[in-house]
Amino acid sequence: MTYCVAMRLDDGMVFLSDSRTNAGLDQISTFRKMAVFEQPGERVLVLLSAGNLAISQSVKALLATERIESDAGRTISIWTAESMFDCARIVGSALRKVHGWDGEALRDQGVEFNVSLILGGQVRGEEMRLFSIYSAGNFIEAGVDGVCYFQIGESKYGKPVIDRIITPSTPLDEATKCALVSMDSTIKSNLSVGLPLDLLVYAEGSLVADKLLTIDESNAYFRMIRTAWGQRVRQMFDALPSPTWEGGAPEHDLAGSACAKPRAMDPLRRVTGPGR
Amino acid sequence: MTYCVAMRLDDGMVFLSDSRTNAGLDQISTFRKMAVFEQPGERVLVLLSAGNLAISQSVKALLATERIESDAGRTISIWTAESMFDCARIVGSALRKVHGWDGEALRDQGVEFNVSLILGGQVRGEEMRLFSIYSAGNFIEAGVDGVCYFQIGESKYGKPVIDRIITPSTPLDEATKCALVSMDSTIKSNLSVGLPLDLLVYAEGSLVADKLLTIDESNAYFRMIRTAWGQRVRQMFDALPSPTWEGGAPEHDLAGSACAKPRAMDPLRRVTGPGR
Repeated sequence: MTYCVAMRLDDGMVFLSDSRTNAGLDQISTFRKMAVFEQPGERVLVLLSAGNLAISQSVKALLATERIESDAGRTISIWTAESMFDCARIVGSALRKVHGWDGEALRDQGVEFNVSLILGGQVRGEEMRLFSIYSAGNFIEAGVDGVCYFQIGESKYGKPVIDRIITPSTPLDEATKCALVSMDSTIKSNLSVGLPLDLLVYAEGSLVADKLLTIDESNAYFRMIRTAWGQRVRQMFDALPSPTWEGGAPEHDLAGSACAKPRAMDPLRRVTGPGR
Repeated sequence: MTYCVAMRLDDGMVFLSDSRTNAGLDQISTFRKMAVFEQPGERVLVLLSAGNLAISQSVKALLATERIESDAGRTISIWTAESMFDCARIVGSALRKVHGWDGEALRDQGVEFNVSLILGGQVRGEEMRLFSIYSAGNFIEAGVDGVCYFQIGESKYGKPVIDRIITPSTPLDEATKCALVSMDSTIKSNLSVGLPLDLLVYAEGSLVADKLLTIDESNAYFRMIRTAWGQRVRQMFDALPSPTWEGGAPEHDLAGSACAKPRAMDPLRRVTGPGR
């Protein structure tokens, strides 16, 4: 499996992906899930992928040369499109081309045409945008009316910390830290997500992808995150009062008077068996 | 969906379940996922369920009267079985009976026969035991050679905190706190899991299920957990140093000298487009 997360914030964007690939537990390998397309000063596009590796690699391979017709009737590529929206349409087009090539044969083999993509970045003259692209090539956009981040792959382990920390106004360094904590929680709880990681931090308006880094076991900052977060979760957990059953301070008292308000549901009834 | 967790610890067992049921987002309802079967002084059995509600309700309804033949050739029920292992076999038998009644009709409608059960408890004369029972009625046991907890339903959001805190020697009140924090993280990140909760804390050897509690919005301890954990995650997160890009203390430096060891993978190559 895979875990990728991308955040669109006021100050820029953060992209983070793992590199563990598996086809069953006995065929584990390492492949990048991030691809960066850059025309310095003009545009930066970042593609993250989860799902069938053959499909996502084909899409990446096609993307630099894929062309579609724009709404205005021009032939455009990711290098000439004037909006991220059109770039997302080009990704969708590449995806549909791969589906045309492989879809039927995969179906014949009982393999689902399963891929999830995130596309984020900025084209000069436009604001940063972030899209989640489905297997059918259709897509949704983050930050317009809803959340400002997307996750693909094994997203659930690392979602709670993002939900508690990230808002559009989170600074880039804090968001980077949060993405790394989210990844650490995922790696700790799921074997199928693993190092090395690819991290890209993009500053709004910069139109260059220069803060790009591969993080493995030797990265001192990520090592610190892994150790310190685990220890602090433990300390924080210990600092929370444990519950008491009747008695003790009111707010530590699970079943006592502080909780004896009318309840939405009756207490659970036990089924009692025959006597001894 | 559902989230249920059960832990088998040296001092006893903790069971926690939510009560949100949905068939699509517009048909949300409240149903218990916990059932308690008790013969005080003799046995306590706790059944947690996730998946198809019609199946799990039928299994619960059958369980008090289901009979199988024991390995020694006796006819036994959950009230007369001499081991939790045999009780788990009885749950499996009830599940297979429901499959016999409904399985084909569900298959005809394209509905998977999908249910996950956790059975835990203690029979007098035996130690506490905890089983995870699959749709086919087969099962695995916790704590024998591996983990000491099982989760069913939406288990991923709340797994990282359990993985960091719970070992067999964790005291019961700490484990209760951990289960509630795990549930809180799940509720915060997933709409399909919701209050009220059913909590049962079982003390090893007691053979009674008297610490049984329904927790809703009015429970002061759970309210404290929800508020305090969120705040402390935030404080803890803020206390972790943010990364710097070259410069700063070595261990805060994402890309700097402290990280410049030989890496398993080359840095990610960007695809560069045509010049402006």
